[in-house]
Amino acid sequence: MAEIKVPVVRNILQANERLASENRRRFDKAGIFVVNLMSSPGAGKTSLLERTIDALAGRMNIAVIEGDLQSSYDAERIQKKGVQAVQINTDGGCHLDANMIQIALDSLDLAGVDLLIIENVGNLVCPAEFNLGEHEKIMILSVTEGDDKPIKYPLMFQICSVLLVNKIDLLPYTDCDLGKIRQSARQLNPAGKVFEISCRTGEGFAPWLSWIEDKVSEHRKNRAGAAASPHAGKH
Amino acid sequence: MAEIKVPVVRNILQANERLASENRRRFDKAGIFVVNLMSSPGAGKTSLLERTIDALAGRMNIAVIEGDLQSSYDAERIQKKGVQAVQINTDGGCHLDANMIQIALDSLDLAGVDLLIIENVGNLVCPAEFNLGEHEKIMILSVTEGDDKPIKYPLMFQICSVLLVNKIDLLPYTDCDLGKIRQSARQLNPAGKVFEISCRTGEGFAPWLSWIEDKVSEHRKNRAGAAASPHAGKH
Repeated sequence: MAEIKVPVVRNILQANERLASENRRRFDKAGIFVVNLMSSPGAGKTSLLERTIDALAGRMNIAVIEGDLQSSYDAERIQKKGVQAVQINTDGGCHLDANMIQIALDSLDLAGVDLLIIENVGNLVCPAEFNLGEHEKIMILSVTEGDDKPIKYPLMFQICSVLLVNKIDLLPYTDCDLGKIRQSARQLNPAGKVFEISCRTGEGFAPWLSWIEDKVSEHRKNRAGAAASPHAGKH
Repeated sequence: MAEIKVPVVRNILQANERLASENRRRFDKAGIFVVNLMSSPGAGKTSLLERTIDALAGRMNIAVIEGDLQSSYDAERIQKKGVQAVQINTDGGCHLDANMIQIALDSLDLAGVDLLIIENVGNLVCPAEFNLGEHEKIMILSVTEGDDKPIKYPLMFQICSVLLVNKIDLLPYTDCDLGKIRQSARQLNPAGKVFEISCRTGEGFAPWLSWIEDKVSEHRKNRAGAAASPHAGKH
C-alpha cells in the first residue's frame, strides 16, 4: 500500500504548493494580512473570531473564510458580526487546501480588506500539511484537551507561529498544567508566541489583539508601497 | 486534482476493507469483542480506558492497541494498569488502518483476551472512513467541545453505535446544552446509544460498563462454540 500512497501524496502536496504561492502573491499585492487558524474540534476557533471581530471591527476591515465538512453554521455566526464571510464545505474532507481558498476568494470582495482569517476544519493533524498561502499559521489549544497535546501532535505545534491557549477560565476545574504546555510548546517551537486567553470571559485578549494590529499595519504598508509604485495597476 | 485523488482513495479504501475483514475473522475465531474508540484530541479516550480497565480488570481479560502520531505516552499509561498494550505510531498519519492493526496483532498474545480496545488517533474526521475489523465503533464527545459537534462532524456520529458524552462534571462551567447533543445525535443515528459520563469523577459509568460486559459475554459464546465445533483447530 505504501507504494501506491506515497507518490500521490507528493503530487497533491506539490500541486497545493503552487496554488498556495499564487494565493500568497494575491494577498501581498492587496496588502492583506492572512491567517490560517487551526485547532481540534471545539477548541474555540469561531468564538475567538467572534470576540476578535468585536474588538477590532472599528479599526480594520476583516473578512473570514470558514472551513467545515458540512453546514454553514459558522459562517452564519460570523456574518452576524457584520463582516464578509464565505463558507467552504469540504464534503467530508479533513482539511482545507489552497485550491479551495482560490475558489472561495472569487466570492469575496478583497478591496480594502486588511485582515483575512481562514478558519480551517477542526483537526490537529491533516491541516498542518497544507499551506493555503497564509502569512501566519495560528493554533488554539483549549486547556480541557489536556497538557499532553504538544508532545502528541508535535507538527501542528511546530509550524504555528502563535499558540492561543484557550478556556483558561476552566483551569480550576481541570488537571491541566499550563506550565507543562508552555514548556513543551517552547521546545517544539522556540520562536513561537504563546497567548493565554478565555474566549468566554475575554481574559488575556489585549496582547493577542496588539499582535494582530501590528501585523496588519506591516502588511498595509506593502499595499501603500504598491500603490505608490510606478508599476501599480499594470498587472 | 480531483482526477488524481478520487481513484487512489478508492484503492486505499478497498485494500483496507480486505484487511479489515481478515482482522474481523481473526477476532471472531478467538471470541474477542473489539472496539474502535475515536474522538477529538483530548476528549478523554485514554482516561476512559484507564477507568474502564480499573472497573473491569477482575472480570475479563483486556488488551489495548494505542494509536498516536508519535510517542508511546498513552501505551505507557495503559500498561501501568497491568493489561497488555501495544503502541502504533502513525508517524504523522491521521488515522489507523486495518494493516496497522494486523501488524500490531503480531505483538499481542490474543489467547484468552475477552476485550480488545483500539484507541484511534485523536481526530473526528479521517478515522471515520477506515474500518479496522472492529465489532463496534465508539466515540467520545466532551461537553467542552460544544453542542454543535454532531451537525459539524456528522459522519463520525452516524457510524458510531455508542456515543459517550464525557466531562459532564464541567457542564456547569460551559454553555453546552446536553439536550441539543442528544437530539442531534439521535437524528444522525436513531439506533445509537448515548451514555453521559465523567472520566474524572466516575459519574455515569455503570450503564457503559454493563453494555461492555453484555457484548463481551456474547462474543465469548462464539469462542466457546468454536471450541466445541468439530472443525475447531483445523485452520
